[in-house]
Amino acid sequence: MRYGYFDDQNKEYVIERPDTPQPWINYLGEGSYFGIISNTAGGYSFYRDARLRRILRYRYNNIPQDEGGRYLYIRFPDGDFFSPTWQPVRKKLDFYRCRHGLGYTIISSRYREIECEITYFVPPREEMEIWSVKLTNRGKELLELDVFSFIEFCLWNALDDSTNFQRNLNIGEVEVEEGVIYHITEYRERRDHYAFFGAVGNIVGFETDRESFLGPYGSLDSPIAVREGKTSNSIACGWAPVGVHQIKVTLPSQHEERIQFLLGYKENLTQHKFIVERRVNKEGIPSLLQRFNDQNEVVRALEKLKTYWNNILSRFQVQTPNSHFNRMINVWNQYQCMITFNLSRSASYFESGISRGIGFRDSNQDLMGFVHLIPDKARERLLDLSSTQFQLGGAYHQYQPLTRQGNDEIGAGFNDDPLWLVLAAASYLKETGDFTILNEMVPFAGGGNPATFYQHLLRSLEYTLHNLGPHGLPLIGQADWNDCLNLNLITENEGKVAESILIGEMFVAAGEELAHIAEIIEKNDDASRFRKEVRTMVDRINQWGWDGEWYLRAYDDRGLPVGSKQNQEGKIFLETQPWAIMCGLADTERGKAAMDSVEKYLATPHGIILQKPAFTQFSLHLGECTSYPPGLKENAGIFCHPNPWAIIAECILKRAEKAWNYWLTISPSSREEISEIHRQEPYVYAQMIAGPDHPRFGEAKNSWLTGTASWALVSATQWILGIRPDYQGLIIDPCIPADWQDFRVQRWFRGVLYTIVVERKPNEKYELKVDGNLLSGKTIPVFSPGSEHRVEVTLGED
Amino acid sequence: MRYGYFDDQNKEYVIERPDTPQPWINYLGEGSYFGIISNTAGGYSFYRDARLRRILRYRYNNIPQDEGGRYLYIRFPDGDFFSPTWQPVRKKLDFYRCRHGLGYTIISSRYREIECEITYFVPPREEMEIWSVKLTNRGKELLELDVFSFIEFCLWNALDDSTNFQRNLNIGEVEVEEGVIYHITEYRERRDHYAFFGAVGNIVGFETDRESFLGPYGSLDSPIAVREGKTSNSIACGWAPVGVHQIKVTLPSQHEERIQFLLGYKENLTQHKFIVERRVNKEGIPSLLQRFNDQNEVVRALEKLKTYWNNILSRFQVQTPNSHFNRMINVWNQYQCMITFNLSRSASYFESGISRGIGFRDSNQDLMGFVHLIPDKARERLLDLSSTQFQLGGAYHQYQPLTRQGNDEIGAGFNDDPLWLVLAAASYLKETGDFTILNEMVPFAGGGNPATFYQHLLRSLEYTLHNLGPHGLPLIGQADWNDCLNLNLITENEGKVAESILIGEMFVAAGEELAHIAEIIEKNDDASRFRKEVRTMVDRINQWGWDGEWYLRAYDDRGLPVGSKQNQEGKIFLETQPWAIMCGLADTERGKAAMDSVEKYLATPHGIILQKPAFTQFSLHLGECTSYPPGLKENAGIFCHPNPWAIIAECILKRAEKAWNYWLTISPSSREEISEIHRQEPYVYAQMIAGPDHPRFGEAKNSWLTGTASWALVSATQWILGIRPDYQGLIIDPCIPADWQDFRVQRWFRGVLYTIVVERKPNEKYELKVDGNLLSGKTIPVFSPGSEHRVEVTLGED
Repeated sequence: MRYGYFDDQNKEYVIERPDTPQPWINYLGEGSYFGIISNTAGGYSFYRDARLRRILRYRYNNIPQDEGGRYLYIRFPDGDFFSPTWQPVRKKLDFYRCRHGLGYTIISSRYREIECEITYFVPPREEMEIWSVKLTNRGKELLELDVFSFIEFCLWNALDDSTNFQRNLNIGEVEVEEGVIYHITEYRERRDHYAFFGAVGNIVGFETDRESFLGPYGSLDSPIAVREGKTSNSIACGWAPVGVHQIKVTLPSQHEERIQFLLGYKENLTQHKFIVERRVNKEGIPSLLQRFNDQNEVVRALEKLKTYWNNILSRFQVQTPNSHFNRMINVWNQYQCMITFNLSRSASYFESGISRGIGFRDSNQDLMGFVHLIPDKARERLLDLSSTQFQLGGAYHQYQPLTRQGNDEIGAGFNDDPLWLVLAAASYLKETGDFTILNEMVPFAGGGNPATFYQHLLRSLEYTLHNLGPHGLPLIGQADWNDCLNLNLITENEGKVAESILIGEMFVAAGEELAHIAEIIEKNDDASRFRKEVRTMVDRINQWGWDGEWYLRAYDDRGLPVGSKQNQEGKIFLETQPWAIMCGLADTERGKAAMDSVEKYLATPHGIILQKPAFTQFSLHLGECTSYPPGLKENAGIFCHPNPWAIIAECILKRAEKAWNYWLTISPSSREEISEIHRQEPYVYAQMIAGPDHPRFGEAKNSWLTGTASWALVSATQWILGIRPDYQGLIIDPCIPADWQDFRVQRWFRGVLYTIVVERKPNEKYELKVDGNLLSGKTIPVFSPGSEHRVEVTLGED
Repeated sequence: MRYGYFDDQNKEYVIERPDTPQPWINYLGEGSYFGIISNTAGGYSFYRDARLRRILRYRYNNIPQDEGGRYLYIRFPDGDFFSPTWQPVRKKLDFYRCRHGLGYTIISSRYREIECEITYFVPPREEMEIWSVKLTNRGKELLELDVFSFIEFCLWNALDDSTNFQRNLNIGEVEVEEGVIYHITEYRERRDHYAFFGAVGNIVGFETDRESFLGPYGSLDSPIAVREGKTSNSIACGWAPVGVHQIKVTLPSQHEERIQFLLGYKENLTQHKFIVERRVNKEGIPSLLQRFNDQNEVVRALEKLKTYWNNILSRFQVQTPNSHFNRMINVWNQYQCMITFNLSRSASYFESGISRGIGFRDSNQDLMGFVHLIPDKARERLLDLSSTQFQLGGAYHQYQPLTRQGNDEIGAGFNDDPLWLVLAAASYLKETGDFTILNEMVPFAGGGNPATFYQHLLRSLEYTLHNLGPHGLPLIGQADWNDCLNLNLITENEGKVAESILIGEMFVAAGEELAHIAEIIEKNDDASRFRKEVRTMVDRINQWGWDGEWYLRAYDDRGLPVGSKQNQEGKIFLETQPWAIMCGLADTERGKAAMDSVEKYLATPHGIILQKPAFTQFSLHLGECTSYPPGLKENAGIFCHPNPWAIIAECILKRAEKAWNYWLTISPSSREEISEIHRQEPYVYAQMIAGPDHPRFGEAKNSWLTGTASWALVSATQWILGIRPDYQGLIIDPCIPADWQDFRVQRWFRGVLYTIVVERKPNEKYELKVDGNLLSGKTIPVFSPGSEHRVEVTLGED
């Protein structure tokens, strides 16, 4: 069952009823001002850091769910009123439609004779959002309407805001000037910033005190001010500041009227904080409102936003016979990759913006999904990440975006972390050819002399070599990629000798990449040294890591295998099977056997589960993964993130149909038809889908902010389509399903636009032509920036 | 305007309408299982620690406010339904009444032909609460009703529960057995405890999955299960576990029926966690339900609870001509003192249970208010507190009740802290005469050899002497009693030499007490040493601390006075004026001048403000107090806590009318008539009342958990009534208002029951008789435990 449809032309997902199984959200903002917005206008905004600069208050896990957002109430002269976004009044609408586009959301509705359309977006490079409202009277009579806006201000620090009430019920302050509501809590002292909420329209009143608007014990579905049709111009001082405008609209039959609401954030220089004593300096805000008083300016800003996104996405566009594939690659998967770059794991319907900073491991993997879109930002992120490394190569697991300081609470010692930096750097170098990054001087967390980025990469590998266990395999530390496989962390004794096969495989991959890089920059000693270490690791894994039909996952702290036939539960894990192939350590026989075991034991109609059998009992020596109910999360859930690894492995094994089927199974677009089971947005990947051990098998959770996005994009573009950046050029090596006759790709690569046409021709062999010239091999060499080239590839039946 | 009345006979406050200006709460529990409950059944329960063992989920600062609690829905066959506690349905009731008693709350209502009365309480020494429901059909026809219960489980750790959704929407688990809902989240692994929610009645169905009960986007005022009259027996696995019973009640005309709900907490020994694999060991729960199936057992448990409280309160009972005074002393003020002992500052309508542990300073002061009620617990608390002291005498500012470990986040260095321990210890010794506590060995935080409690007290004083500033006055550290006077904490330079006059005064008081104690245990060297240090400090304060009409408050980090005529804002502070008299350093002339200045500049019709003029601008060198809006909190708010200090000082100065007026001004009972202004509960003190600089002058905030309770009780009983424990006996030295002719007190003191009758006889002198025998002086000597004595005091006109 579907709750909407893809509008591929407009790059929008169109939702046709407000009561989707879960709130289906979208993101506003691309630079510093961000928001999440659901299909019924729920959500909140923040400036840069969702925890420390929260602008709107939002109640997670609320009753009713997803209440709190960017709301309007429209009131008729007879006292009847509704919300044009359904929430929070939830009165039945005669028509409802939500269009989630790239960086904007348009919600349209009709109730009685009123049509309303609200376009929410953040104009590029602005630190504010616009709600552009169009009201149309479809009735025969002139109508006098009252429109009420509603937002609730968060007192900036979202954690304090939700815990420290003996303080925060006393600190809320606002000013109101010419209809603009200024939220100035703590401005007098520790802050140099405020929020503003203005409107362009016939403002006849306002509220800033929540209770004045809602009434005692009032609820958002029926505020007293709306019921009674009047505001009291309250000035909040303490308790809960809100922003409410009352706007009179006189609307003749068949006429329309526009109202613009502007909600934003402003920082002042310390020396310009006040105009006169105690009055906040509001310079710039009235003129901003003035500017967007002009509807054309709003239209231009929205167009600019669309151009911004189209420019980004134009760097990779595909036409294949499969519409799921086309829309995921051309729009949604790339868009999701950009969102994971912008937000890391901070703010979604599942991430509260409070718990987590920017993850080291997360961001490095996210980068693989957006490096082709915004290589400059990728460069910056790589340098930021490596500056949270310690001298010995280890790294903070997370850092805060505002301060760029590592989070001491989480700490370091996730032993896979440094290797992801090498793999991400390799992606960057392959995409951009920008080897100058290797010479950038980068500081270390915890002090000491800075070193070049290249040195940071070397130390990442050294870190693994300095942390080997009894089998010569890498120690797992707090956890490897699987955060919930805690083989050392919560053991009662103090052993700390558990080893991770996955980190070993990652070391092989990263070591190989670094050796390659070292050769290019003529550090041949480094290259041969790491080639040697890689060979040793390959041998050890093949000696100690093979279980007969698949690769082990780890050795626990007692030296016992994890992910082996010997185990009662968790006999086989997914991660180490595809990685054995991705890093090249498995020979074809073992590779095929491993991936056959994945298919046999782990593949389900809703995706590949993380391990099997599920853990029914808690094991202290295995940790957190055994704590989840069977079928959820890391306990035999369909963790989506490693599913693309299986796709990549099958492509390497040249088993195109298996790869394709795995892609199709977890692709949100192809799951759209079962939205009542999947329940999350059909346009973005979720972190997890419940596995067969769970009563809600197939139900997704934690959509949007997941490493699944980048790996899914990499698996689809670099391995199924086979268009794969390499140090020397662009490889074209497709592994497409049998029923695809052809496909066409436009791709920018190092400043060059390639139009790539791939055709399958039975009885012929692989052939690569650039601008009509036949090349040997599968790699297009690097051409001069600014040129355009036509690439033709013929696929045989290999 | 009032919203209810005091039922003095039953020791209850009776609320007559549900929509009080703010939720008016009460507390359940006295040992380990606690809850807060509002007059409309809002609130939550927890086991020992409101943060780490939260049983019910509650949304602070919610819309609608105070939604989430212990709810029932009653549904008629025609589909109409209501909540007998008004919330969460909020349908108009034909009758409503809430009786907040000592440890129990009874909410009665009538809707259509149904009368409902619910008694909520925690039976003494049980780890569970009862909701005892009585339904009466006042109509003429037989009625078939459906009763639905509703609670929402918190996933134990209240902070994680409200921030970490990518995890906690996956971990919720329940079991349901014979109608009992077991909340077993995380039981399989890190927990050895579960919650249960059972009912004794004709259970026909249940829900444990929130959405199944509420419906998609459902709200608590209209759950789909109640609207449709049917439950689906859902088993939550992930998302949000709730507890809902559906109970059929067939009620003939004029008949009544009882239903008992039991909500509780259970810990199992690790070796008995499971009965069979994966099934939680539920031993004891069915028999508990069985037991309370008997209505007589419920009645007995409630009687036991009342006896428990009556026994406690019987230790001090008074009859005076003033009914406000009588009810506050006999019931509410003492009850509030017990609650502050139980809860410290953790859980109230304003304290989220997340931010704060047990405060060192708070608990020592709280102790003065309950040491006469539960001296054994006071002893235990003193030893706990001193074990969070460091070797050098400083102390952790807070510690967690479950672990008894200091909170590193807040740390130490609040330089008044150690002195409160000495003052609290003196209170304990004076009340009990139990000098054995001085020899108890107590460890130190941060390690090192344990020392006797007496040594801990010595080090408390040494701490001050080791932390003196440029004037030889005590350094303030992070803050003294006024948490928001941060003279060192947030300065930009690193001076750290700001000095506190208040700590100096406290040192004088504490040093005097310790010298006295030392003499008693014949440590005469210590006594003379501290007497000498006290004299030095007295001289310094009189030299450096006197501003001409009042005492300074402090010297800031630049050596400039704080609370002086020289200042533009904050010229005079309250705290140091009464303390100069309480510690005995002010001579009569300065004492009177200081207190006259308090009256002239700081006293208002709603209480004494903390300083004047309010800070209109933020001052980095004064800190947090300048950050609040003028009139709130430490910025010229009526901070209630130090108001009783003024009462005590006026009593010492023998200015009875001034003392009495101060008492009357902030007494909750005497503010009952202005409940629409005061807005908080009229039966307990609040931390703060807005001062005249604030638009809501007179509005209270942060009721219940405040040191105001103990100081108000001390000021009223020891200083206005003048019945004051001392090392050698019980002093009787009243300072009562002129229009009181007499009063009578029953007081237990060191195992002796005294009946004290005080009469004013003009033209006579003070006279003290015990059992008819005239004594010289004002002190009753210590009699043998178990005896009873009649004390007659004649007051002259001194």
